[in-house]
Amino acid sequence: MPRHGQGQGQLMGPGPATTSAGRSTVLLFVSDSHFQLSEEVEASTAMPSADMSATTTLSQYLLDRLHQLGVNTIFGVPGDFTLSLNDVIEADPRIMWTGCCNELNASYAADGYARVKQAQLNRTPDPQTGKIAGGVRGMAAIVSTFGVGELSCVNGIAGSYAERIPVLSIVGAPSTKLQKGHVLIHHHLGDVGGRFDIFKDATAGMTCAQAYLTSADNAAEEIDRVLLAMLKTARPGYVTIPTDLVYAKVDASRVRTPLLPLADPLDERMPNGKMLKHETQDRLDFVVSEIERLWETAKDPIVLVDACAIRFGVGHLVEELVKATGVRWYTSPMGRTVMDEDSENGFGGVYIAQLSDDDLRDAVEKTDLAIMVGAIRSDLNTGLWSTRIKTKNIVELHSSCTSVQYAEYDAISFQLLLPVLAKTLKRKTTPPPERPLAVARPIAPVGEPSEPVTNALLWPLVGNFLRENDIVVAEVGCSSFGLLTTPLPKGATLVSQTLWSSIGWSVGATLGALLAAQESPVPRRVLLFVGDGSMQLTVQEVATMVRYGLKPTIVLLNNAGYTIERFINGPTAQYNDISLWDWSKVLPLFTPPAASTSSPVKPGRFFSASTRGELEAILADDDFIAADRVQMLEVKCDRLDAPKALLKLGEVTRRINSA
Amino acid sequence: MPRHGQGQGQLMGPGPATTSAGRSTVLLFVSDSHFQLSEEVEASTAMPSADMSATTTLSQYLLDRLHQLGVNTIFGVPGDFTLSLNDVIEADPRIMWTGCCNELNASYAADGYARVKQAQLNRTPDPQTGKIAGGVRGMAAIVSTFGVGELSCVNGIAGSYAERIPVLSIVGAPSTKLQKGHVLIHHHLGDVGGRFDIFKDATAGMTCAQAYLTSADNAAEEIDRVLLAMLKTARPGYVTIPTDLVYAKVDASRVRTPLLPLADPLDERMPNGKMLKHETQDRLDFVVSEIERLWETAKDPIVLVDACAIRFGVGHLVEELVKATGVRWYTSPMGRTVMDEDSENGFGGVYIAQLSDDDLRDAVEKTDLAIMVGAIRSDLNTGLWSTRIKTKNIVELHSSCTSVQYAEYDAISFQLLLPVLAKTLKRKTTPPPERPLAVARPIAPVGEPSEPVTNALLWPLVGNFLRENDIVVAEVGCSSFGLLTTPLPKGATLVSQTLWSSIGWSVGATLGALLAAQESPVPRRVLLFVGDGSMQLTVQEVATMVRYGLKPTIVLLNNAGYTIERFINGPTAQYNDISLWDWSKVLPLFTPPAASTSSPVKPGRFFSASTRGELEAILADDDFIAADRVQMLEVKCDRLDAPKALLKLGEVTRRINSA
Repeated sequence: MPRHGQGQGQLMGPGPATTSAGRSTVLLFVSDSHFQLSEEVEASTAMPSADMSATTTLSQYLLDRLHQLGVNTIFGVPGDFTLSLNDVIEADPRIMWTGCCNELNASYAADGYARVKQAQLNRTPDPQTGKIAGGVRGMAAIVSTFGVGELSCVNGIAGSYAERIPVLSIVGAPSTKLQKGHVLIHHHLGDVGGRFDIFKDATAGMTCAQAYLTSADNAAEEIDRVLLAMLKTARPGYVTIPTDLVYAKVDASRVRTPLLPLADPLDERMPNGKMLKHETQDRLDFVVSEIERLWETAKDPIVLVDACAIRFGVGHLVEELVKATGVRWYTSPMGRTVMDEDSENGFGGVYIAQLSDDDLRDAVEKTDLAIMVGAIRSDLNTGLWSTRIKTKNIVELHSSCTSVQYAEYDAISFQLLLPVLAKTLKRKTTPPPERPLAVARPIAPVGEPSEPVTNALLWPLVGNFLRENDIVVAEVGCSSFGLLTTPLPKGATLVSQTLWSSIGWSVGATLGALLAAQESPVPRRVLLFVGDGSMQLTVQEVATMVRYGLKPTIVLLNNAGYTIERFINGPTAQYNDISLWDWSKVLPLFTPPAASTSSPVKPGRFFSASTRGELEAILADDDFIAADRVQMLEVKCDRLDAPKALLKLGEVTRRINSA
Repeated sequence: MPRHGQGQGQLMGPGPATTSAGRSTVLLFVSDSHFQLSEEVEASTAMPSADMSATTTLSQYLLDRLHQLGVNTIFGVPGDFTLSLNDVIEADPRIMWTGCCNELNASYAADGYARVKQAQLNRTPDPQTGKIAGGVRGMAAIVSTFGVGELSCVNGIAGSYAERIPVLSIVGAPSTKLQKGHVLIHHHLGDVGGRFDIFKDATAGMTCAQAYLTSADNAAEEIDRVLLAMLKTARPGYVTIPTDLVYAKVDASRVRTPLLPLADPLDERMPNGKMLKHETQDRLDFVVSEIERLWETAKDPIVLVDACAIRFGVGHLVEELVKATGVRWYTSPMGRTVMDEDSENGFGGVYIAQLSDDDLRDAVEKTDLAIMVGAIRSDLNTGLWSTRIKTKNIVELHSSCTSVQYAEYDAISFQLLLPVLAKTLKRKTTPPPERPLAVARPIAPVGEPSEPVTNALLWPLVGNFLRENDIVVAEVGCSSFGLLTTPLPKGATLVSQTLWSSIGWSVGATLGALLAAQESPVPRRVLLFVGDGSMQLTVQEVATMVRYGLKPTIVLLNNAGYTIERFINGPTAQYNDISLWDWSKVLPLFTPPAASTSSPVKPGRFFSASTRGELEAILADDDFIAADRVQMLEVKCDRLDAPKALLKLGEVTRRINSA
């Protein structure tokens, strides 16, 4: 049942069909009007060939496309308008159906799957070419039923939109005949006369493109339009499949031409290609020379990497830049693990302005040239907008534009610019900063074995516990703030939902991360860090992990409520209290799959620690470290104990809310 | 902590301030332009008086209004944009905060609370006047935080919209200053430049009115506008409270004037009132004479009651009509328990066309005059649109119009028409139908104690187990179909979500029902009937029931998957399988409140039955019947066993989906 076959997405996925440097730098570059299928598809549309007679079904076409884009599992909950589509998925040996407990969790799982896939695909060189393809990758998909199902996952889709995760929301809709007849059917709002597409409207703001299919005639084109928009923007899309179109015939040949996220503006064969190429090249040369001018005089340049560098798959290009220039690089919270965070790699630490330690903050803010790549300047990603680097000292690279000091340059993307900078900017020989590197093994405060566990103790111990290639899922709150400054080993992937910050997300996301990890060429542990309040929102998805024989390590911070809220307002208010659970009873609730000789299933284990001694012993336990079964570690903390950065955040947030 | 004080809503709630028959018949009668505050409020707005100097806070104003409308508990999940509002709620002794595990569950709970409140308020005479006030009542409210919270409950709100339950969605939003500054804040979609009101847009299709507050100046008026629209349409509303407006000053005197859902068009003091009165009276007289004409010749007239009779609070008027005329009445699935379903009351059974037993179907369809009250002609409510009564034999009464045979009469509402019909239509002396009444004690099929439990056995036993005043919450699926034909005792309330049919709804709704039951003048057991697949979507809300010391009886049909879907498509498909849980381990997960001498808390109990003997013994157990603690009864059924009506439904649905 679990997925194998890692790598399909690498060969056929988004990103250039050729691996020439030229093509790989132009993703997301030009305007919508240039955004299109490859020329072959256009030609086949214009001139029907003998191949056109071969047909496939609409649902199979969609699955073929998804598989081509590296989607090897589809999450969801069946509903009576999805069942035929479910039949087709169940019959497709390439794509696994992951039945979730509810739709919100399914959307979180899809989000987590896409994040980890993205990290894996864009940090692993293609076995054939030896190169990293880059680009928007790691797509995911969910299936839910009309109305009730799709609305249940709107929050998850919105989170993927905000954080730029390309999740396709596939909705099983009533048959086109029922819709045309405006019948009053269940899962409908009950307004006489219709409004079948109102749920599409509700989701429209949280998706980059929508296809409300009503006929097979243009269905394949519509699906491609949505997928292309997702590849362009790294955002979710939406498509409905009415029950009577599941087996409708569409042209089978179309799928043979992979989707190209974007035509290459530097390709002279394109309409206006020649003109565009010259104009772009001139503009690019100009921007490079402007950056070079600043670089020459800069004494302490740094690179600051942020989320969009991950989302648009340019981490490897940033790596080339920092290696070529020898400068130190920092990440924002959302940019973490875009590259290996080790000192050999030039890593300086996680910069969060006023939420950083003073020495790290100073080291960053004394720069006279910060090259910022893919910045998302949201509150939690910037220490509540407290970055103190003057605009005149900033070069900012994005997926669609570049700014140098106060000048803005449209249509110069980081895909285009980074490789040129790596070749052009001269190597700096500035000495490393004096402060101890953030990547050093963390030192836990000294204390007695009987002392209660605090966040100050926990996170250094966690830092020491982490291993190469670990996938760490961090819930927003004590977990994400505790992990902010926790060093992460080589090959590790940290996923967290810093901008959207929907509590409960991490549990669903862990399910997705576990399935993505199964597609990794190297074994990867998946660790979830989540508080008790957040866990309660989405806890049932642990059942799905157990059901499919997955092996998360769940570290549950039991601090008896919404601790992050307590620091913003109402430290002892009842509304920040929650139902108290006996967490030892969660795993025994769920039935693991029947063991087979090829994959024996060990029963889940539960640990609880409220003292240093207990915690240290568990973290040193070989079986616990091996993580060869589902395991939960409850860490009991005081409800008013939190990581230092969280305390500071609470104070500033309280001030802002009432201002 | 639990609520007391049942009846506040009755005295001050929606519905006419006076109890004259004239006022009580005009709800939802006139067009939007007549929909307004009482004249006093209009006057006070126009002419500021000395009272105007007294102010209250915006949040307190909202709570005052909600309390006035009978809202004694607010459901929700705190978020950092709701915390100040939570402070105000926690400080208000009249309104309880019910902290839920997640927002979707909170919206379901609000829906369930409103349904049961509606039933209680509109079936209990006012202790002072001895009369039932009627009208749209049983309002509920939820609080969630901007973006992440409000989107998580969109599906719940949509369900309330479809099924006409007035739930107010209160959203804690970022401060107006942050919004004006278009800052990139968490819970935001991350588009540079704004779109703070995009979530309002996403909810707009599922709410009857929205107030996106940006200033205290018109805030009270805006809140009233939304509440009035909810009272008019029996649908959800939406209001945002930015963090910096929680304590903003608004006019305190305004709240002293209760909201009138509608001005009385027969009130001559209204603008154009005189003209309107005459026109309406003439139109009403005409419609009554048309109905009388049909009535005179009808040999076998019946009354068919449906959901909107409950939602708009005219059940007592229907009761007057059937008592006065002596005819038999039937309900649709959604109309159940609008009145006591006993034979003395003239009850004939639950009519679902082709899903009914043949004799009941024949008894209804041979009518030569069906007076249909508040019909919702959705698929599951009409046996998939298989009602066989000719339009020429139908008089249809709605909240805003009436049709007689093929003629439609706008602006003649059932509130206006029913009391007149009760006085006008002559008593019929037709003999009772020959078939055994649907209200007879159900007879379980004979069998051995060791035989496995089937749906055919279960529902008759459940029918015998139910007691007077029970509140029965039925999940869509085997539960709702099994209960379709199960007789319900006097005073019972059945709530189910037949039109929207969102699985998982019933668990949240049960929490709401339990809190509403605490406001009942008589003790009421609350029984939830739910399948294992549905339970998994929302199971964590059982924790909230335990946390607040509530005492549901949860009957869990464990049939290892989505049985309702199996009958539509894929009887043995993997996608209809679910994670298998050890249900005995659910209740021990949760910690009950500390016992006090005034309210001792007994530990929860779990029962499991897979044979007739086991089931009969449990249902006969005095302690189980007493339901004085939270208890769960797992009933194990084969995954391909279902109530008869469900089998039929699956067959027809499969045909429709592929057509």
